[in-house]
Amino acid sequence: MIYFDNAATGFPKSGRVLAAMTKAYGLCGNPGRSGHAPAIYAAEKLYECRETLAAFFGTAPERVILTPSATIALNMAIKGFAQNKVVTSSVEHNAVFRPLYSMWQRGRADLSFFDAGGTDEQIVQRFTASLEGAYTAVFIHASNVNGRILPLREMVTEAHKSGVTTIIDASQSAGHINLSVKDSGADIICIAGHKGLYGPLGTGAMLINPSFDMFAETIIEGGTGIRSLDSEMPEEYPEHFEAGTMNAPAFAALAEAVRETEEEGLGDDRIFAKLYESLKSMKNVTVHGGPEYGYDKYVPVLLFNIRKRNCDEAMTYLAARGICVRSGFHCAPLAHKALGTENGGIRVSVGRKNTLKEADVLIDEIHRIAKSVS
Amino acid sequence: MIYFDNAATGFPKSGRVLAAMTKAYGLCGNPGRSGHAPAIYAAEKLYECRETLAAFFGTAPERVILTPSATIALNMAIKGFAQNKVVTSSVEHNAVFRPLYSMWQRGRADLSFFDAGGTDEQIVQRFTASLEGAYTAVFIHASNVNGRILPLREMVTEAHKSGVTTIIDASQSAGHINLSVKDSGADIICIAGHKGLYGPLGTGAMLINPSFDMFAETIIEGGTGIRSLDSEMPEEYPEHFEAGTMNAPAFAALAEAVRETEEEGLGDDRIFAKLYESLKSMKNVTVHGGPEYGYDKYVPVLLFNIRKRNCDEAMTYLAARGICVRSGFHCAPLAHKALGTENGGIRVSVGRKNTLKEADVLIDEIHRIAKSVS
Repeated sequence: MIYFDNAATGFPKSGRVLAAMTKAYGLCGNPGRSGHAPAIYAAEKLYECRETLAAFFGTAPERVILTPSATIALNMAIKGFAQNKVVTSSVEHNAVFRPLYSMWQRGRADLSFFDAGGTDEQIVQRFTASLEGAYTAVFIHASNVNGRILPLREMVTEAHKSGVTTIIDASQSAGHINLSVKDSGADIICIAGHKGLYGPLGTGAMLINPSFDMFAETIIEGGTGIRSLDSEMPEEYPEHFEAGTMNAPAFAALAEAVRETEEEGLGDDRIFAKLYESLKSMKNVTVHGGPEYGYDKYVPVLLFNIRKRNCDEAMTYLAARGICVRSGFHCAPLAHKALGTENGGIRVSVGRKNTLKEADVLIDEIHRIAKSVS
Repeated sequence: MIYFDNAATGFPKSGRVLAAMTKAYGLCGNPGRSGHAPAIYAAEKLYECRETLAAFFGTAPERVILTPSATIALNMAIKGFAQNKVVTSSVEHNAVFRPLYSMWQRGRADLSFFDAGGTDEQIVQRFTASLEGAYTAVFIHASNVNGRILPLREMVTEAHKSGVTTIIDASQSAGHINLSVKDSGADIICIAGHKGLYGPLGTGAMLINPSFDMFAETIIEGGTGIRSLDSEMPEEYPEHFEAGTMNAPAFAALAEAVRETEEEGLGDDRIFAKLYESLKSMKNVTVHGGPEYGYDKYVPVLLFNIRKRNCDEAMTYLAARGICVRSGFHCAPLAHKALGTENGGIRVSVGRKNTLKEADVLIDEIHRIAKSVS
């Protein structure tokens, strides 16, 4: 099997990541819920994960809110901090757009969209122009549809000049490119554990900038192990956002996955380049919004279509040959609208476990479909 | 090590449950996100878990909403369905009380508490008396502090006579006693996967009665794999509530855990009886709200204190001898208030993997502390 759907989930997880989880299961009780050995071990594993993520992503351990997914982290951040006029981009994933839409429906936010196409300068300019009167900006760091990385630091700088809080969806960028809360200046960055970091499913995080001190409403309340006598969630981080039993074995494995990412590096750019160059020059194939502004401005995700071929059929053809890609809308209809791919497309997403040889096989199979088009 | 903290999390998880998870990790992509083999396998594993839970808990597979925890399931249910006057009990866990309190704070619900102490008849009577003008009732099935099982079916019957929707927190009862959505008539039952069912952490479910047809607001929105072009979450279950990547390997393991529970049965009642009889008759030991109304009205949880001994110190003493119990408030201050244990207590919670011999060791050690009290 050849797996090029790493933007959906990194595959395969490594043996050491799974071993870390299994080992933790043998020793973990419920973290923070008692003072016996398994409960303490579980709490230590959670803290180790906070420290590892904090070091990797440039924030403080207590500012690492561990969540069951990036989607839940984004919902917590958006509903906790966004209000009034909210600025967001034309290329958001439904994990950002749908929570914002639900806030708009309930009269809790007005939405203003900026065009996130074009050069970095154009993006920053349009973003800046949209900030007037805004309270919060929520936007994707790197598109899950065509891989485009938005100029995060410049955008955050402009937002802060206007007193606008920034919430970033880094689901697709974390683990693929260097990303730092402190260096970017972003107030909140939400990440997935199971994509570019190759951690287990069921892991994500909301990373809060140590300099950010706004108070958030919560969307999930429950037991916290501390301050049990209070009717409200504790005010301190991370407990303010962490209700219920935390999945200590999964976060033990996520810590291991981050260590592995540090050791292995962020992947071989040549695979992405080879795929792009081959598809771009292939007859009957159109790459949509490929890395036209330079490879350093993209995570390794390519969207394309084959003339006269339905994208789902092409995906199914490839799947039958053991090649995994994803067709359709990738939970991001806004991005497809922006790219002009209203009927969807075929997405190839490279991970650091892919090889150049796998890329060759994929290219050959796509070529086989493309050349059959009359 | 002797583990009597199964109400916090069932320990240890069995080899076959962990093997099911590890196996799934080797084959699972992102469920519902493409048509290639790993994505299809992951979707099949999710569906298998829905079917297994549906059969075990008496509902339909599409009415099994898989969640990362009972806490998240309860927040979804409470904030989705509860409004106006909400009736709840005097013994709730913070996973119910805090979400209700946050709704009250935001002006979205009025709370009315009924006394859940005494006989079944007394509980039903007081519950029924509190229903007037209510819209929703939310209450615990079995207390995580003293194990008392509330008379679910009778309470649901009374609630429905008054047109009141019922949301049940079965975190502590699922896997310990027979529980059926259909037989109880409850509208929504929320369960934890990692406690009495001995499934992995990071698993829970909201079980919806097939006859319940109210529409819920969501608290988490995001990608669903289906109906990606819509701005709102799909109306159909389970997708309405399931946003973001579902943790297919964990739910594959939960299905295995449920099968194991079916095979192994619900545990050896003699352990609970032996612990209760021994502690009840022990000098300087007070059992709070023990199974005085009959063992069949309790899940195997005991709360006690030792005269002149701080409960945390007693827990630490036991932990140093390799015995795991939990002291303090158990995230349920209301229940402690109702039991008159305002300074907390020591909780022993039995699981189906405990043995009579382990109970003997625990009894000896508690006796050692108790007899040292002058």
